[in-house]
Amino acid sequence: MILNRILIVGNGLIGASVGLALRRAGFQGRITGVDRSPQEGAEAVRLGAVDYAVVSEYEAMTAAIEADVILLAVPVLAVMDWMRRLAPMLAPQQLVTDVGSTKLAIAELAFDLFGATDQPRFLPGHPMAGKESGGAALAQADLFEGAMWLFTPLHEQGERERVWRGWVERMGARTMDLDPGEHDRVCAWVSHLPQMVSTAMSAMFADAFAESPHLAEEFAAIGGRAMREMTRLGASPYSMWRDIAMTNTEPLAGTLFALEQRLAHLRENLKTPELRDEFAKANAFKTKVGS
Amino acid sequence: MILNRILIVGNGLIGASVGLALRRAGFQGRITGVDRSPQEGAEAVRLGAVDYAVVSEYEAMTAAIEADVILLAVPVLAVMDWMRRLAPMLAPQQLVTDVGSTKLAIAELAFDLFGATDQPRFLPGHPMAGKESGGAALAQADLFEGAMWLFTPLHEQGERERVWRGWVERMGARTMDLDPGEHDRVCAWVSHLPQMVSTAMSAMFADAFAESPHLAEEFAAIGGRAMREMTRLGASPYSMWRDIAMTNTEPLAGTLFALEQRLAHLRENLKTPELRDEFAKANAFKTKVGS
Repeated sequence: MILNRILIVGNGLIGASVGLALRRAGFQGRITGVDRSPQEGAEAVRLGAVDYAVVSEYEAMTAAIEADVILLAVPVLAVMDWMRRLAPMLAPQQLVTDVGSTKLAIAELAFDLFGATDQPRFLPGHPMAGKESGGAALAQADLFEGAMWLFTPLHEQGERERVWRGWVERMGARTMDLDPGEHDRVCAWVSHLPQMVSTAMSAMFADAFAESPHLAEEFAAIGGRAMREMTRLGASPYSMWRDIAMTNTEPLAGTLFALEQRLAHLRENLKTPELRDEFAKANAFKTKVGS
Repeated sequence: MILNRILIVGNGLIGASVGLALRRAGFQGRITGVDRSPQEGAEAVRLGAVDYAVVSEYEAMTAAIEADVILLAVPVLAVMDWMRRLAPMLAPQQLVTDVGSTKLAIAELAFDLFGATDQPRFLPGHPMAGKESGGAALAQADLFEGAMWLFTPLHEQGERERVWRGWVERMGARTMDLDPGEHDRVCAWVSHLPQMVSTAMSAMFADAFAESPHLAEEFAAIGGRAMREMTRLGASPYSMWRDIAMTNTEPLAGTLFALEQRLAHLRENLKTPELRDEFAKANAFKTKVGS
């Protein structure tokens, strides 16, 4: 199977970066982009991430019918909307894949819509790459260089999945297969919890500033790398995170509750040797996983 | 007043970096180092951070009596021990200053020990610079370049404070004066809370790995920048943070409790519009303070 036509649905940071990365990797076929924002589509064309940008549902469906691979690069609930719209329209030899941040809800829906042998195939995917701000304008051809691109496959790997995985690797990503539930539990720890901590800390600072405006100046002057790191993801868009919170609610709530308990434990032990034990555990983790 | 002799007590990351930064800034006088670890002292000499390194209490006191400025670059409780030992030994024209991470306890003790006009002077200081790991070997001449060096002065600024502040600025730091209680409250937010979050998250990960060893591999493979940033300070030494927790207990407990409440609020609202409001506040903070 040779890929001649790829359709990228969603021409934001990830979608446009995939287009740029495919070109950098030598992809010669046609890349069409779909975005409901004409500005994002135009930017993706300008950058060379896609050859054509379409906006209307009719044009999008026409492009989808002609595509060998359709990449859904939109937030999770929008991925699921597109899956429902596309499934009845596509032919068995077509491959649909996605970059959604949670995988269990998508994999379950994919099993219903794409699970049978006479249907197009669906390969749930999730590149661990991104930035705190979105949009085609921030797209980079090397965004996936060295990044982990996770898959939670429904099927034994067929020819079309093999070809797509080949392009993912040529974009510079490493790949790993996981069970979709395991994916969501691990991402709750390593990605979703850090986001919520950053949002919580940024929102707390915003409230503190509203109460004492002079604090803003002091925080900006005094806060260093630690504060910048801890609040970097405070800039992340709700539009994407709403869907993650909706579709990974229990694992995320579990990690949040665990952290609340852990912070309370530290708070109650600021003057006891328990604090030393927590620092020792944290030190051991950093020695093991590295910085 | 010209500085001919500086004594740096504690030749770890900060103390040794001050020595290197003074030399880079053109300081020509003698710099003596005191460290209870002969290895740290030897490393500081090897790097050119200090001219001489002494270990014994007797040598340290002899060097202190001869110094124009004595910089205490040790954890907070050790700063306070040195203050008590030095106060009765020094002459009125000498200046003692420090780099301790909390300032209220130090400023109160300084007022008792150094508050009168016929006593040596004490200038409480705190450079907002450092790394998650300590030690002379990591010292850098440019560690204070662009960093904020805070002071919580007890007195009107005299000649000797003016001279020391001049060297601090020549080391590349900006300076700001604060009330010591305000210093500790602001640092609880921008420095101590991030540390405790990083320690808590790192310790939680350590526990999770102990329960399911395969998780360590997955976390390391899947976790990206967010996890690295959130746990970077997990490597920080208990020896330094014990003293911060001991001397800034209430403000730190207050920020921890506020974050616990905020995380619980997010957890209870993962599927409600409250989540949108928290993201909006966080976005506004990042727009205001920048990244």
